[in-house]
Amino acid sequence: MEGLSHLDDQGRAHMVDVGDKPVTAREAVAEALITLSAEARNALLGGGLAKGDAWAVARIAAIQGVKRTSEMVPLCHPIPITGVEVDLSGTPDGARIQVTVRTTGPTGVEMEAITGAALGAVTIYDMVKGIDRGAEIGPIRLLAKSGGRSGEWRR
Amino acid sequence: MEGLSHLDDQGRAHMVDVGDKPVTAREAVAEALITLSAEARNALLGGGLAKGDAWAVARIAAIQGVKRTSEMVPLCHPIPITGVEVDLSGTPDGARIQVTVRTTGPTGVEMEAITGAALGAVTIYDMVKGIDRGAEIGPIRLLAKSGGRSGEWRR
Amino acid sequence: MEGLSHLDDQGRAHMVDVGDKPVTAREAVAEALITLSAEARNALLGGGLAKGDAWAVARIAAIQGVKRTSEMVPLCHPIPITGVEVDLSGTPDGARIQVTVRTTGPTGVEMEAITGAALGAVTIYDMVKGIDRGAEIGPIRLLAKSGGRSGEWRR
Amino acid sequence: MEGLSHLDDQGRAHMVDVGDKPVTAREAVAEALITLSAEARNALLGGGLAKGDAWAVARIAAIQGVKRTSEMVPLCHPIPITGVEVDLSGTPDGARIQVTVRTTGPTGVEMEAITGAALGAVTIYDMVKGIDRGAEIGPIRLLAKSGGRSGEWRR
Amino acid sequence: MEGLSHLDDQGRAHMVDVGDKPVTAREAVAEALITLSAEARNALLGGGLAKGDAWAVARIAAIQGVKRTSEMVPLCHPIPITGVEVDLSGTPDGARIQVTVRTTGPTGVEMEAITGAALGAVTIYDMVKGIDRGAEIGPIRLLAKSGGRSGEWRR
Amino acid sequence: MEGLSHLDDQGRAHMVDVGDKPVTAREAVAEALITLSAEARNALLGGGLAKGDAWAVARIAAIQGVKRTSEMVPLCHPIPITGVEVDLSGTPDGARIQVTVRTTGPTGVEMEAITGAALGAVTIYDMVKGIDRGAEIGPIRLLAKSGGRSGEWRR
Repeated sequence: MEGLSHLDDQGRAHMVDVGDKPVTAREAVAEALITLSAEARNALLGGGLAKGDAWAVARIAAIQGVKRTSEMVPLCHPIPITGVEVDLSGTPDGARIQVTVRTTGPTGVEMEAITGAALGAVTIYDMVKGIDRGAEIGPIRLLAKSGGRSGEWRR
Repeated sequence: MEGLSHLDDQGRAHMVDVGDKPVTAREAVAEALITLSAEARNALLGGGLAKGDAWAVARIAAIQGVKRTSEMVPLCHPIPITGVEVDLSGTPDGARIQVTVRTTGPTGVEMEAITGAALGAVTIYDMVKGIDRGAEIGPIRLLAKSGGRSGEWRR
Repeated sequence: MEGLSHLDDQGRAHMVDVGDKPVTAREAVAEALITLSAEARNALLGGGLAKGDAWAVARIAAIQGVKRTSEMVPLCHPIPITGVEVDLSGTPDGARIQVTVRTTGPTGVEMEAITGAALGAVTIYDMVKGIDRGAEIGPIRLLAKSGGRSGEWRR
Repeated sequence: MEGLSHLDDQGRAHMVDVGDKPVTAREAVAEALITLSAEARNALLGGGLAKGDAWAVARIAAIQGVKRTSEMVPLCHPIPITGVEVDLSGTPDGARIQVTVRTTGPTGVEMEAITGAALGAVTIYDMVKGIDRGAEIGPIRLLAKSGGRSGEWRR
Repeated sequence: MEGLSHLDDQGRAHMVDVGDKPVTAREAVAEALITLSAEARNALLGGGLAKGDAWAVARIAAIQGVKRTSEMVPLCHPIPITGVEVDLSGTPDGARIQVTVRTTGPTGVEMEAITGAALGAVTIYDMVKGIDRGAEIGPIRLLAKSGGRSGEWRR
Repeated sequence: MEGLSHLDDQGRAHMVDVGDKPVTAREAVAEALITLSAEARNALLGGGLAKGDAWAVARIAAIQGVKRTSEMVPLCHPIPITGVEVDLSGTPDGARIQVTVRTTGPTGVEMEAITGAALGAVTIYDMVKGIDRGAEIGPIRLLAKSGGRSGEWRR
């Protein structure tokens, strides 16, 4: 069984050295769902399109979350992100955000995609919480990754 | 129907003025769950206790996420947080993080509790992703809030 | 002649103590203009409305700039901002951003309004620079302030 | 006509992927002017030299603004800046700041130079605003860039 | 024996709740020393005055460190700093930085003074390390505090 | 005599251009000591092991300080850190933190190691200050560096 790579053999947190890993093109895709009440969903998505700046605000929150992942997740490496795409859409039960992150570097961008999706969803909650305080975020999960030693993975 | 308070009547994002709201003691509690494979759960929680620094790292991530919510969620107000508690525990399916935030101010700390719980859960994912890339975060949700005009709320 | 308040009598930078100043409601309004080529103006404002997320991105940049002024302008005090409004519009020569900031505190928010307007305009430049690298930002200037010892001021 | 590169074909903000662009040495130079009242100009520049720490504070604000551009301008890429020079000088009407930024990477540093110049000028305004609240910043503009696919450009 | 206030009775880190503590004027003073080789001390302090921007850069680093203490020290509360003074001087063996911090709030600013002094000294090291890589920082220590329940303390 | 590399020939702060320096594997090790009263040392280290989360909190503070050095030390370059190890231990007089930092890049990581050690020690002070306000931090110093033009150095 492989252990927890962020803890050394004495259980101490460290930032794993990635200096010897090959620099390759890498991509990761994550999604987050949010379940909304009918009233909140209607306020947010009204005639099928998100109202006003709502989607744009969540999109920027996701992009900035991607860029600042290494500040917010203590053992993440700082990574020179080369591209980010954010897709938002309504679902029957609420909304969904999908974040695609790319880099060329020695370590993957799974955490950046997950963090961006999480902060995008948290930002949607911020917009609807006056109507639907009980809205629930989740699941947040990795959909795919490619590049690096472990190669391609799809859920 | 109450609209989306973060958008004005033309749909433009703004930071709502809270200058006229009363300064009161406020508290919010949020939780996030994470579902882990048996292997990942065992690696993380082995003999019942989280291994090494694992819980502490997630705890610090949550506390720092609480403090920096207004940087990560674009329309949140900066808030002088007065206290944060973070509880982590194993569940039959994975782990759970609960974040309690307190302030004395003109606006609530629901977003701070939600953001802290989300970033704590994302940090747990970071620690297990080498074993269980498919782990899922959620639900993330508000459990309770008190203080302010809208008073007490419990899920 | 009043001196430069951020330098002490030996010319050394300090953060002026505002602990004795009265806590009052304060507001400041600043604007920034940007001059664009016809081609860039048309790409940005096409049929009279800014395209897609363009205005929303600039609005978020301005709001976040307001919140983080004390990080970017070395001698500014951290201030608990209570509200921010951002108005963007086309002008015959390009575009204009107006930022209104409110707080209740011991010091004014002129710098927050100016910084938000500047960063909003810089963000507009970022969006058009592929078309109009020579676009010019300015003037950026305070339009009004109220509250505090010096009371109301209008340009 | 080339479109707005930061918006996709549906108008959604994204961070353009630069992973395929060549890594080359790049440089950008931007300037910002500030117009001051005679009184403010005299307080700042007295006998021809900026007083005390005034220039140094603006210089540090510009350098830090360069380094943190990707945090403040939502769609900018994080860039490993390799060098920054900041020149400040008095002008007949006020002051001028020029910022030169260098990197070796897949994307240019125009935004870093513009953001650094803007924040340096905002910091000068912060120092004189007690004397000259009406001081105006601008123009802020790119003077030159080199490196990358589009090669050299001069105003 | 009083325990470690940042750990609860199970040893878990938390941010102590200060919501019930009285809001009072508070001040803290800390110092940091740095021991330099004769060559480095001469390069830095030449004719008795620090050269060029050297002192100003360290001063700004200290002020910004004071403002951002709650980001860098995980369990510190965000505090609305009202004033900061930084004094730098040469010593027979190197240099000394003294940082005075003031706030009006429910908790003290000892950590802000200590962090500012530490980061100011680290910045001086940065300036001399090309000449004197072996320079040593320390002691860094609190000199005095006043305000709050525990009142005045002097070393 | 070599001058202060962060100041140009007119004494102005700049960020030295490292674009022409070779990209090599680099490592730096720094330590910080903290002297504690017997009571504080006992509270922190009781039966020989640091209590609860104490060491983990300091470790995270050090790792995050390493990653954010270029924000806190004004003239430091942003550096893509590839690995960080933090060792904490009790000493007869208090405690010691050692920080090892690695990168592959054009400039060294001495400042990152020093900043991480300083912020880790400041965080330990934060935990004991309720018991031992007079605790002293220091010396903080570089122990070793390798890589780059100047090669290996050991204290």
